[in-house]
Amino acid sequence: MSDSSLLLSIAILGGTGKEGKGLAYRWAKAGYHIHIGSRDSAKAQTAAKEVMELLGGEAIIEGLSNVEAARKANIAVLTVPYSAHRETVELVKAELKGKILVDVTVPLIPPKVSTVQMPAAGSAAQEARQIVGEEVQVCAAFQNISHEHLLDSRSDECDVLVTGTSKEARNEVIKLVDATGLRGWDAGPLENSVVVEGLTSVLIGINKKYGSTHSGIKITGVSR
Amino acid sequence: MSDSSLLLSIAILGGTGKEGKGLAYRWAKAGYHIHIGSRDSAKAQTAAKEVMELLGGEAIIEGLSNVEAARKANIAVLTVPYSAHRETVELVKAELKGKILVDVTVPLIPPKVSTVQMPAAGSAAQEARQIVGEEVQVCAAFQNISHEHLLDSRSDECDVLVTGTSKEARNEVIKLVDATGLRGWDAGPLENSVVVEGLTSVLIGINKKYGSTHSGIKITGVSR
Repeated sequence: MSDSSLLLSIAILGGTGKEGKGLAYRWAKAGYHIHIGSRDSAKAQTAAKEVMELLGGEAIIEGLSNVEAARKANIAVLTVPYSAHRETVELVKAELKGKILVDVTVPLIPPKVSTVQMPAAGSAAQEARQIVGEEVQVCAAFQNISHEHLLDSRSDECDVLVTGTSKEARNEVIKLVDATGLRGWDAGPLENSVVVEGLTSVLIGINKKYGSTHSGIKITGVSR
Repeated sequence: MSDSSLLLSIAILGGTGKEGKGLAYRWAKAGYHIHIGSRDSAKAQTAAKEVMELLGGEAIIEGLSNVEAARKANIAVLTVPYSAHRETVELVKAELKGKILVDVTVPLIPPKVSTVQMPAAGSAAQEARQIVGEEVQVCAAFQNISHEHLLDSRSDECDVLVTGTSKEARNEVIKLVDATGLRGWDAGPLENSVVVEGLTSVLIGINKKYGSTHSGIKITGVSR
């Protein structure tokens, strides 16, 4: 358990999917206190129980409504499908003041999920920022990770690009990335989230064309 | 020399910079006939001579005006700074009908070169497409390559994402990428060029923050 994990508890909003449970698993394993949030708190409790069992009961994970999870945590991570993005951010925004929101959302619009299609705000993360306002630091991360593999070790092949509204917030999120066992990089201001969100569509296309389920990216030519 | 190099000659428009000369070097070495274009054809001739000397005279490289280079070649590669992008595309568009234009331009707007700032068209490549119209296939590639290293082997650490207006055009350009010794990937329709152009700003920021001159990306978790 790192020092920062003593200070932080993490809400995973819409955390009952593969992505949310995978992140919950990695962070709970690293010693963070996890609040899984869902529209349906019974589903959140079931997800919490599942992750707890994977960890042999050695973790602090609870299932709650999205609002309660956002209220209890220091950092909220948003893992909802794009169709539920606006509604969920509106719902929890009052609970996020002074905190960091980490947006994992990719604005995929079926059926053309391998074509980049960004909202008017520029990206899902910038849309979230418009909703929560300046009292919440917004970062974006984890959009390119193959969620299938967060419960095993294969996703370690993919680096995580972290954008956000301040360097300080990005540094906090990079610590959280590192705690999952992945490698996080400071990818600059939130405007740059269009690149990272859009890269997911590129990777979906590459998966389809070249026959994979878990293409990703690594940053080369530099070390940290 | 591959079969396709017997068929293709390549214009490198604005080809007197590091980037253009580096690409000329790689392709001439692979056996392609190269037309280096510039606003100033004397400068183009000097650049052609420099690259020819690096190759010990074993190459076909000539220096021309941008218009003449575009006229003579089957494929035109555009390596101008963004400030000269529109003007150059307008100048050569009549010569490009039925051909492929490969746009290498990144819309960097100083001083914030590590912040993604796309033109109204969505990306530089989409802007080029608006200018040349439907009679020209437009692809975009090589935006993330460290130009310093095209004249040596270190840039091989970076993969090349190829977007474009048709799968056929992208496949042609992927062959050209492979001929440079780099690895090209089909990154989907031209709309996805925002990701690849924007990634350059992310990499410039990573270079600055983590102390490198040649960060890049590799696609992982999939083979081709």
